[in-house]
Amino acid sequence: MTDSSSRPTTVYGRPVTTDGVPNLYEGTAVAPWTPPAPGIDNLGITSVDTFAVPGVGEYTVDFSGYVRVVRSEPTSEEWSSAEVYTNLIEMKMVGECAELGRITVTLNPDCLSTGQIRTPFDPYAGEGPAAKACRMAVGAIFDMPKLGLRLANKEPIILTIDDVRQIPPAGSPGKGQIYRMLPLHDVQRLDDSPVAYVTSLRFTMGGYTTVEAMAAR
Amino acid sequence: MTDSSSRPTTVYGRPVTTDGVPNLYEGTAVAPWTPPAPGIDNLGITSVDTFAVPGVGEYTVDFSGYVRVVRSEPTSEEWSSAEVYTNLIEMKMVGECAELGRITVTLNPDCLSTGQIRTPFDPYAGEGPAAKACRMAVGAIFDMPKLGLRLANKEPIILTIDDVRQIPPAGSPGKGQIYRMLPLHDVQRLDDSPVAYVTSLRFTMGGYTTVEAMAAR
Repeated sequence: MTDSSSRPTTVYGRPVTTDGVPNLYEGTAVAPWTPPAPGIDNLGITSVDTFAVPGVGEYTVDFSGYVRVVRSEPTSEEWSSAEVYTNLIEMKMVGECAELGRITVTLNPDCLSTGQIRTPFDPYAGEGPAAKACRMAVGAIFDMPKLGLRLANKEPIILTIDDVRQIPPAGSPGKGQIYRMLPLHDVQRLDDSPVAYVTSLRFTMGGYTTVEAMAAR
Repeated sequence: MTDSSSRPTTVYGRPVTTDGVPNLYEGTAVAPWTPPAPGIDNLGITSVDTFAVPGVGEYTVDFSGYVRVVRSEPTSEEWSSAEVYTNLIEMKMVGECAELGRITVTLNPDCLSTGQIRTPFDPYAGEGPAAKACRMAVGAIFDMPKLGLRLANKEPIILTIDDVRQIPPAGSPGKGQIYRMLPLHDVQRLDDSPVAYVTSLRFTMGGYTTVEAMAAR
Protein backbone atom coordinates (compact mmCIF):
# COMPACT_ATOMS: atom_id res chain seq x y z
CA MET A 1 0.00 0.00 0.00
CA THR A 2 1.14 3.50 -0.76
CA ASP A 3 -0.21 6.85 0.30
CA SER A 4 -2.90 8.57 -1.69
CA SER A 5 -0.54 11.12 -3.24
CA SER A 6 1.43 8.43 -5.07
CA ARG A 7 0.86 7.34 -8.63
CA PRO A 8 -1.35 4.24 -9.04
CA THR A 9 0.55 1.14 -10.09
CA THR A 10 -2.52 -0.44 -11.67
CA VAL A 11 -4.54 1.45 -14.27
CA TYR A 12 -7.67 -0.36 -15.40
CA GLY A 13 -8.45 1.75 -18.47
CA ARG A 14 -8.01 5.24 -19.90
CA PRO A 15 -6.89 8.06 -17.59
CA VAL A 16 -9.03 11.24 -17.76
CA THR A 17 -7.65 14.63 -16.83
CA THR A 18 -9.25 16.72 -14.09
CA ASP A 19 -7.38 19.88 -15.21
CA GLY A 20 -9.82 22.72 -15.76
CA VAL A 21 -12.84 20.42 -15.42
CA PRO A 22 -15.65 22.00 -13.36
CA ASN A 23 -17.15 20.37 -10.28
CA LEU A 24 -20.87 19.76 -10.70
CA TYR A 25 -23.25 19.66 -7.75
CA GLU A 26 -26.96 19.68 -6.97
CA GLY A 27 -28.86 21.86 -9.40
CA THR A 28 -26.87 20.85 -12.47
CA ALA A 29 -29.20 20.34 -15.44
CA VAL A 30 -28.91 17.02 -17.30
CA ALA A 31 -30.21 16.70 -20.87
CA PRO A 32 -31.20 13.22 -22.02
CA TRP A 33 -29.69 11.77 -25.23
CA THR A 34 -27.04 14.52 -25.23
CA PRO A 35 -23.28 14.06 -24.74
CA PRO A 36 -22.35 16.65 -22.09
CA ALA A 37 -19.26 18.83 -21.75
CA PRO A 38 -16.58 17.41 -19.40
CA GLY A 39 -17.38 17.66 -15.70
CA ILE A 40 -16.66 16.20 -12.31
CA ASP A 41 -19.94 14.66 -11.17
CA ASN A 42 -20.46 14.71 -7.41
CA LEU A 43 -23.18 12.11 -6.94
CA GLY A 44 -24.87 10.24 -4.13
CA ILE A 45 -24.78 6.45 -4.22
CA THR A 46 -26.32 3.55 -2.33
CA SER A 47 -25.30 -0.09 -2.51
CA VAL A 48 -26.26 -3.45 -1.03
CA ASP A 49 -23.20 -5.69 -0.79
CA THR A 50 -22.94 -9.25 0.46
CA PHE A 51 -19.68 -10.40 2.06
CA ALA A 52 -18.76 -14.04 2.65
CA VAL A 53 -16.15 -14.78 5.29
CA PRO A 54 -15.09 -18.46 4.99
CA GLY A 55 -15.95 -20.44 8.09
CA VAL A 56 -17.71 -17.46 9.66
CA GLY A 57 -20.74 -16.47 7.61
CA GLU A 58 -22.31 -14.35 4.90
CA TYR A 59 -23.43 -10.79 5.67
CA THR A 60 -25.45 -8.32 3.63
CA VAL A 61 -24.78 -4.66 4.31
CA ASP A 62 -26.56 -1.48 3.14
CA PHE A 63 -24.16 1.29 2.17
CA SER A 64 -24.70 4.93 1.35
CA GLY A 65 -22.32 7.71 0.46
CA TYR A 66 -20.99 9.59 -2.53
CA VAL A 67 -18.73 9.28 -5.55
CA ARG A 68 -16.82 11.84 -7.61
CA VAL A 69 -16.46 10.92 -11.27
CA VAL A 70 -14.53 12.91 -13.85
CA ARG A 71 -15.86 12.65 -17.41
CA SER A 72 -13.86 13.19 -20.61
CA GLU A 73 -14.80 15.28 -23.62
CA PRO A 74 -17.25 13.07 -25.58
CA THR A 75 -15.72 11.65 -28.77
CA SER A 76 -18.71 12.97 -30.76
CA GLU A 77 -21.48 15.54 -30.37
CA GLU A 78 -23.90 12.91 -31.63
CA TRP A 79 -25.38 10.67 -28.92
CA SER A 80 -25.31 7.43 -30.89
CA SER A 81 -21.60 7.51 -31.70
CA ALA A 82 -20.29 9.37 -28.63
CA GLU A 83 -17.96 7.63 -26.21
CA VAL A 84 -17.28 9.15 -22.82
CA TYR A 85 -14.40 8.02 -20.58
CA THR A 86 -14.57 8.29 -16.82
CA ASN A 87 -12.32 8.00 -13.78
CA LEU A 88 -13.64 7.47 -10.28
CA ILE A 89 -11.55 10.02 -8.35
CA GLU A 90 -13.16 9.74 -4.93
CA MET A 91 -15.61 7.45 -3.16
CA LYS A 92 -16.88 7.15 0.37
CA MET A 93 -19.60 4.72 1.32
CA VAL A 94 -20.48 3.69 4.85
CA GLY A 95 -22.49 0.71 6.03
CA GLU A 96 -22.89 -1.33 9.17
CA CYS A 97 -24.01 -4.70 10.42
CA ALA A 98 -23.82 -6.28 13.87
CA GLU A 99 -21.25 -8.96 13.01
CA LEU A 100 -18.85 -6.90 10.83
CA GLY A 101 -19.37 -3.55 12.55
CA ARG A 102 -19.05 -0.31 10.62
CA ILE A 103 -17.54 -0.65 7.12
CA THR A 104 -16.14 2.29 5.17
CA VAL A 105 -15.42 1.83 1.46
CA THR A 106 -12.98 4.17 -0.26
CA LEU A 107 -10.81 4.04 -3.38
CA ASN A 108 -7.58 2.07 -3.38
CA PRO A 109 -4.88 4.67 -4.16
CA ASP A 110 -2.76 1.97 -5.81
CA CYS A 111 -5.39 1.67 -8.58
CA LEU A 112 -6.77 4.12 -11.10
CA SER A 113 -10.45 3.20 -11.28
CA THR A 114 -11.63 3.81 -14.83
CA GLY A 115 -14.74 3.47 -16.90
CA GLN A 116 -16.54 4.34 -20.07
CA ILE A 117 -19.97 4.98 -21.50
CA ARG A 118 -20.64 3.82 -25.04
CA THR A 119 -23.29 2.25 -27.21
CA PRO A 120 -23.06 -1.49 -26.60
CA PHE A 121 -22.44 -3.93 -29.42
CA ASP A 122 -25.65 -5.69 -28.41
CA PRO A 123 -28.10 -2.78 -27.92
CA TYR A 124 -31.73 -3.31 -27.11
CA ALA A 125 -33.66 -3.35 -30.38
CA GLY A 126 -36.43 -0.77 -30.71
CA GLU A 127 -37.51 2.65 -31.82
CA GLY A 128 -35.66 5.86 -31.04
CA PRO A 129 -32.12 6.51 -29.85
CA ALA A 130 -30.07 3.59 -28.53
CA ALA A 131 -29.41 3.57 -24.80
CA LYS A 132 -25.77 3.35 -23.79
CA ALA A 133 -23.93 1.00 -21.46
CA CYS A 134 -21.83 2.34 -18.59
CA ARG A 135 -19.04 0.31 -17.02
CA MET A 136 -16.33 1.04 -14.49
CA ALA A 137 -13.48 -1.04 -13.08
CA VAL A 138 -12.88 -0.18 -9.44
CA GLY A 139 -10.17 -0.87 -6.90
CA ALA A 140 -11.53 -0.31 -3.38
CA ILE A 141 -10.53 -0.54 0.26
CA PHE A 142 -13.04 -1.97 2.74
CA ASP A 143 -12.12 -0.71 6.19
CA MET A 144 -13.56 -2.90 8.98
CA PRO A 145 -12.19 -1.52 12.27
CA LYS A 146 -14.29 -3.86 14.43
CA LEU A 147 -12.45 -6.81 12.87
CA GLY A 148 -9.15 -4.91 12.70
CA LEU A 149 -9.12 -5.47 8.94
CA ARG A 150 -8.61 -3.36 5.85
CA LEU A 151 -9.47 -5.40 2.77
CA ALA A 152 -8.71 -4.72 -0.89
CA ASN A 153 -9.84 -6.32 -4.12
CA LYS A 154 -6.95 -7.21 -6.46
CA GLU A 155 -9.26 -7.96 -9.38
CA PRO A 156 -11.30 -4.84 -10.19
CA ILE A 157 -14.95 -4.73 -9.25
CA ILE A 158 -16.79 -4.24 -12.54
CA LEU A 159 -19.74 -1.90 -11.96
CA THR A 160 -22.23 -1.69 -14.81
CA ILE A 161 -25.31 0.36 -15.59
CA ASP A 162 -27.48 -0.55 -18.56
CA ASP A 163 -30.05 1.45 -20.48
CA VAL A 164 -28.22 4.75 -19.98
CA ARG A 165 -30.25 7.60 -21.52
CA GLN A 166 -28.43 10.53 -19.96
CA ILE A 167 -24.95 11.29 -18.65
CA PRO A 168 -24.45 10.98 -15.73
CA PRO A 169 -26.94 8.10 -15.29
CA ALA A 170 -28.26 9.50 -12.00
CA GLY A 171 -31.05 7.44 -10.48
CA SER A 172 -30.17 4.30 -12.45
CA PRO A 173 -29.77 0.89 -10.86
CA GLY A 174 -26.48 -0.89 -11.44
CA LYS A 175 -24.77 -4.11 -10.63
CA GLY A 176 -21.34 -5.38 -9.66
CA GLN A 177 -20.58 -8.09 -12.22
CA ILE A 178 -19.39 -10.63 -9.70
CA TYR A 179 -19.38 -14.24 -10.81
CA ARG A 180 -19.98 -16.21 -7.59
CA MET A 181 -17.18 -14.53 -5.61
CA LEU A 182 -14.71 -11.67 -5.76
CA PRO A 183 -11.68 -12.21 -3.49
CA LEU A 184 -10.73 -9.60 -0.88
CA HIS A 185 -7.22 -9.52 0.55
CA ASP A 186 -5.85 -8.10 3.79
CA VAL A 187 -3.89 -5.00 2.73
CA GLN A 188 -1.16 -5.98 5.20
CA ARG A 189 -0.77 -9.37 3.50
CA LEU A 190 -1.79 -8.71 -0.09
CA ASP A 191 0.05 -11.77 -1.44
CA ASP A 192 -1.62 -14.17 0.98
CA SER A 193 -4.86 -16.04 0.36
CA PRO A 194 -8.04 -13.94 0.36
CA VAL A 195 -9.69 -13.51 3.76
CA ALA A 196 -13.18 -12.66 2.53
CA TYR A 197 -15.24 -12.39 -0.64
CA VAL A 198 -17.88 -10.13 -2.10
CA THR A 199 -20.58 -12.43 -3.43
CA SER A 200 -23.14 -9.84 -4.57
CA LEU A 201 -23.19 -6.09 -5.18
CA ARG A 202 -26.19 -4.05 -6.31
CA PHE A 203 -26.06 -0.29 -6.36
CA THR A 204 -28.11 2.73 -7.36
CA MET A 205 -26.53 5.93 -8.62
CA GLY A 206 -27.95 8.94 -6.85
CA GLY A 207 -28.38 12.42 -8.22
CA TYR A 208 -26.07 15.41 -7.90
CA THR A 209 -25.26 16.12 -4.27
CA THR A 210 -23.90 19.07 -2.31
CA VAL A 211 -20.55 19.93 -0.75
CA GLU A 212 -22.32 19.94 2.63
CA ALA A 213 -23.82 16.46 2.19
CA MET A 214 -20.43 15.08 1.15
CA ALA A 215 -18.67 16.70 4.10
CA ALA A 216 -21.25 15.20 6.46
CA ARG A 217 -20.34 11.65 5.39
CA MET B 1 5.41 -2.93 -21.72
CA THR B 2 8.36 -4.65 -20.22
CA ASP B 3 10.19 -7.81 -21.17
CA SER B 4 9.07 -11.16 -19.85
CA SER B 5 11.91 -11.45 -17.33
CA SER B 6 10.68 -8.43 -15.37
CA ARG B 7 8.46 -8.56 -12.32
CA PRO B 8 4.74 -8.07 -13.00
CA THR B 9 3.42 -4.70 -11.86
CA THR B 10 -0.13 -6.00 -11.51
CA VAL B 11 -0.86 -9.09 -9.42
CA TYR B 12 -4.49 -10.21 -9.57
CA GLY B 13 -4.42 -12.63 -6.62
CA ARG B 14 -2.11 -14.93 -4.69
CA PRO B 15 1.31 -15.77 -6.14
CA VAL B 16 2.16 -19.50 -6.21
CA THR B 17 5.74 -20.75 -6.22
CA THR B 18 7.04 -22.97 -9.01
CA ASP B 19 10.12 -23.97 -6.96
CA GLY B 20 10.41 -27.73 -6.82
CA VAL B 21 6.99 -28.25 -8.37
CA PRO B 22 6.96 -31.06 -10.96
CA ASN B 23 5.79 -30.59 -14.55
CA LEU B 24 2.87 -32.87 -15.37
CA TYR B 25 2.19 -34.08 -18.89
CA GLU B 26 0.11 -36.65 -20.78
CA GLY B 27 -0.29 -39.83 -18.78
CA THR B 28 -0.70 -38.13 -15.39
CA ALA B 29 -3.45 -39.82 -13.38
CA VAL B 30 -6.19 -37.58 -11.99
CA ALA B 31 -8.34 -38.75 -9.06
CA PRO B 32 -11.81 -37.22 -8.73
CA TRP B 33 -12.86 -35.57 -5.45
CA THR B 34 -9.23 -35.58 -4.25
CA PRO B 35 -7.01 -32.53 -3.61
CA PRO B 36 -3.78 -33.28 -5.49
CA ALA B 37 -0.15 -32.55 -4.58
CA PRO B 38 1.25 -29.37 -6.17
CA GLY B 39 2.04 -29.60 -9.87
CA ILE B 40 2.51 -27.63 -13.04
CA ASP B 41 -0.31 -28.75 -15.31
CA ASN B 42 0.55 -28.65 -19.00
CA LEU B 43 -2.87 -28.74 -20.63
CA GLY B 44 -4.40 -28.26 -24.04
CA ILE B 45 -7.06 -25.58 -24.44
CA THR B 46 -9.52 -24.43 -27.08
CA SER B 47 -11.50 -21.21 -27.08
CA VAL B 48 -14.03 -19.36 -29.21
CA ASP B 49 -13.61 -15.61 -28.81
CA THR B 50 -15.60 -12.79 -30.37
CA PHE B 51 -13.86 -9.47 -31.03
CA ALA B 52 -15.68 -6.21 -31.78
CA VAL B 53 -13.74 -3.50 -33.58
CA PRO B 54 -15.77 -0.25 -33.45
CA GLY B 55 -16.76 0.93 -36.92
CA VAL B 56 -15.29 -2.18 -38.53
CA GLY B 57 -17.14 -5.28 -37.38
CA GLU B 58 -17.45 -8.22 -35.05
CA TYR B 59 -15.41 -11.37 -35.62
CA THR B 60 -15.56 -14.79 -34.01
CA VAL B 61 -12.33 -16.76 -33.97
CA ASP B 62 -11.56 -20.37 -32.97
CA PHE B 63 -8.37 -20.71 -30.95
CA SER B 64 -6.37 -23.73 -29.87
CA GLY B 65 -3.18 -24.08 -27.92
CA TYR B 66 -1.91 -24.82 -24.46
CA VAL B 67 -1.63 -23.41 -20.96
CA ARG B 68 0.77 -24.10 -18.11
CA VAL B 69 -0.78 -23.70 -14.66
CA VAL B 70 1.06 -24.06 -11.36
CA ARG B 71 -1.06 -25.29 -8.46
CA SER B 72 -0.38 -24.69 -4.73
CA GLU B 73 -0.44 -27.19 -1.91
CA PRO B 74 -4.14 -27.67 -1.10
CA THR B 75 -5.16 -26.03 2.17
CA SER B 76 -6.73 -29.31 3.30
CA GLU B 77 -6.56 -33.01 2.42
CA GLU B 78 -10.34 -33.09 2.53
CA TRP B 79 -12.04 -32.23 -0.78
CA SER B 80 -14.89 -30.20 0.67
CA SER B 81 -12.73 -27.73 2.57
CA ALA B 82 -9.64 -27.67 0.33
CA GLU B 83 -8.66 -24.49 -1.47
CA VAL B 84 -6.10 -24.59 -4.25
CA TYR B 85 -4.40 -21.47 -5.61
CA THR B 86 -3.15 -21.28 -9.19
CA ASN B 87 -1.01 -19.08 -11.40
CA LEU B 88 -1.15 -19.19 -15.17
CA ILE B 89 2.57 -19.21 -16.00
CA GLU B 90 2.42 -19.71 -19.77
CA MET B 91 -0.22 -19.61 -22.48
CA LYS B 92 -0.16 -19.85 -26.24
CA MET B 93 -3.32 -19.95 -28.29
CA VAL B 94 -3.51 -19.39 -32.03
CA GLY B 95 -6.54 -18.60 -34.14
CA GLU B 96 -7.28 -17.06 -37.51
CA CYS B 97 -10.00 -15.37 -39.47
CA ALA B 98 -9.95 -13.68 -42.87
CA GLU B 99 -10.46 -10.12 -41.63
CA LEU B 100 -8.16 -10.11 -38.58
CA GLY B 101 -5.58 -12.59 -39.92
CA ARG B 102 -3.67 -14.84 -37.57
CA ILE B 103 -4.04 -14.02 -33.86
CA THR B 104 -1.66 -15.31 -31.18
CA VAL B 105 -2.68 -14.98 -27.53
CA THR B 106 0.01 -15.10 -24.85
CA LEU B 107 0.33 -13.88 -21.28
CA ASN B 108 0.99 -10.22 -20.55
CA PRO B 109 4.30 -10.22 -18.63
CA ASP B 110 3.22 -7.05 -16.78
CA CYS B 111 0.49 -9.09 -15.01
CA LEU B 112 0.59 -12.10 -12.74
CA SER B 113 -2.46 -14.10 -13.82
CA THR B 114 -3.85 -15.82 -10.76
CA GLY B 115 -6.70 -18.08 -9.80
CA GLN B 116 -8.20 -20.39 -7.26
CA ILE B 117 -10.36 -23.46 -6.87
CA ARG B 118 -12.70 -23.60 -3.89
CA THR B 119 -16.16 -24.70 -2.87
CA PRO B 120 -18.48 -21.87 -3.88
CA PHE B 121 -20.68 -20.09 -1.35
CA ASP B 122 -23.66 -21.04 -3.53
CA PRO B 123 -22.99 -24.72 -4.35
CA TYR B 124 -25.41 -26.83 -6.30
CA ALA B 125 -27.65 -28.60 -3.83
CA GLY B 126 -27.66 -32.38 -4.02
CA GLU B 127 -26.28 -35.68 -2.79
CA GLY B 128 -22.61 -36.48 -2.57
CA PRO B 129 -19.51 -34.25 -2.52
CA ALA B 130 -19.91 -30.60 -3.53
CA ALA B 131 -18.35 -29.63 -6.84
CA LYS B 132 -15.88 -26.76 -6.73
CA ALA B 133 -15.68 -23.51 -8.66
CA CYS B 134 -12.52 -22.56 -10.54
CA ARG B 135 -11.71 -18.97 -11.45
CA MET B 136 -8.71 -17.21 -12.89
CA ALA B 137 -7.93 -13.56 -13.62
CA VAL B 138 -5.83 -13.25 -16.76
CA GLY B 139 -3.83 -10.49 -18.41
CA ALA B 140 -3.22 -11.39 -22.06
CA ILE B 141 -1.62 -10.03 -25.22
CA PHE B 142 -3.47 -10.50 -28.52
CA ASP B 143 -0.93 -10.25 -31.33
CA MET B 144 -2.54 -9.39 -34.67
CA PRO B 145 0.32 -8.92 -37.16
CA LYS B 146 -2.02 -8.52 -40.15
CA LEU B 147 -3.42 -5.37 -38.54
CA GLY B 148 -0.03 -4.36 -37.11
CA LEU B 149 -1.56 -4.46 -33.63
CA ARG B 150 -0.70 -5.97 -30.28
CA LEU B 151 -3.63 -5.59 -27.91
CA ALA B 152 -3.78 -6.00 -24.14
CA ASN B 153 -6.62 -6.13 -21.65
CA LYS B 154 -6.15 -3.77 -18.67
CA GLU B 155 -9.04 -5.29 -16.73
CA PRO B 156 -8.37 -9.00 -16.18
CA ILE B 157 -10.31 -11.55 -18.19
CA ILE B 158 -12.14 -13.63 -15.57
CA LEU B 159 -12.17 -17.27 -16.71
CA THR B 160 -14.47 -19.56 -14.76
CA ILE B 161 -15.22 -23.27 -14.71
CA ASP B 162 -18.15 -24.57 -12.68
CA ASP B 163 -18.95 -28.04 -11.39
CA VAL B 164 -15.28 -28.96 -10.86
CA ARG B 165 -15.03 -32.58 -9.65
CA GLN B 166 -11.32 -33.09 -10.18
CA ILE B 167 -8.17 -30.97 -10.24
CA PRO B 168 -7.19 -30.02 -12.89
CA PRO B 169 -10.67 -29.74 -14.45
CA ALA B 170 -9.49 -31.21 -17.77
CA GLY B 171 -12.26 -31.55 -20.32
CA SER B 172 -14.52 -29.02 -18.63
CA PRO B 173 -16.19 -26.16 -20.45
CA GLY B 174 -15.56 -22.67 -19.14
CA LYS B 175 -16.51 -19.11 -19.81
CA GLY B 176 -14.95 -15.69 -19.84
CA GLN B 177 -17.17 -13.61 -17.55
CA ILE B 178 -17.45 -10.66 -19.90
CA TYR B 179 -20.35 -8.31 -19.33
CA ARG B 180 -21.14 -6.96 -22.81
CA MET B 181 -17.57 -5.86 -23.58
CA LEU B 182 -14.01 -6.12 -22.31
CA PRO B 183 -11.79 -3.29 -23.59
CA LEU B 184 -8.53 -4.06 -25.42
CA HIS B 185 -5.81 -1.43 -25.66
CA ASP B 186 -2.95 -1.02 -28.13
CA VAL B 187 0.18 -1.90 -26.12
CA GLN B 188 1.98 1.05 -27.74
CA ARG B 189 -0.71 3.44 -26.46
CA LEU B 190 -1.99 1.78 -23.31
CA ASP B 191 -3.41 5.03 -21.89
CA ASP B 192 -5.44 5.82 -25.01
CA SER B 193 -9.01 4.71 -25.64
CA PRO B 194 -9.53 1.02 -26.34
CA VAL B 195 -9.22 0.01 -29.99
CA ALA B 196 -11.21 -3.23 -29.79
CA TYR B 197 -13.28 -5.29 -27.38
CA VAL B 198 -13.79 -8.93 -26.53
CA THR B 199 -17.56 -9.43 -26.41
CA SER B 200 -17.67 -13.19 -25.78
CA LEU B 201 -15.24 -15.91 -24.72
CA ARG B 202 -16.04 -19.59 -24.30
CA PHE B 203 -13.31 -22.10 -23.71
CA THR B 204 -12.77 -25.79 -23.00
CA MET B 205 -9.87 -27.06 -20.89
CA GLY B 206 -8.12 -29.90 -22.61
CA GLY B 207 -6.31 -32.81 -20.99
CA TYR B 208 -2.64 -33.18 -20.18
CA THR B 209 -0.53 -32.61 -23.28
CA THR B 210 3.04 -33.41 -24.31
CA VAL B 211 6.25 -31.43 -24.65
CA GLU B 212 6.17 -32.24 -28.36
CA ALA B 213 2.62 -30.96 -28.86
CA MET B 214 3.46 -27.73 -27.03
CA ALA B 215 6.64 -27.20 -29.04
CA ALA B 216 4.67 -27.68 -32.28
CA ARG B 217 2.38 -24.74 -31.44
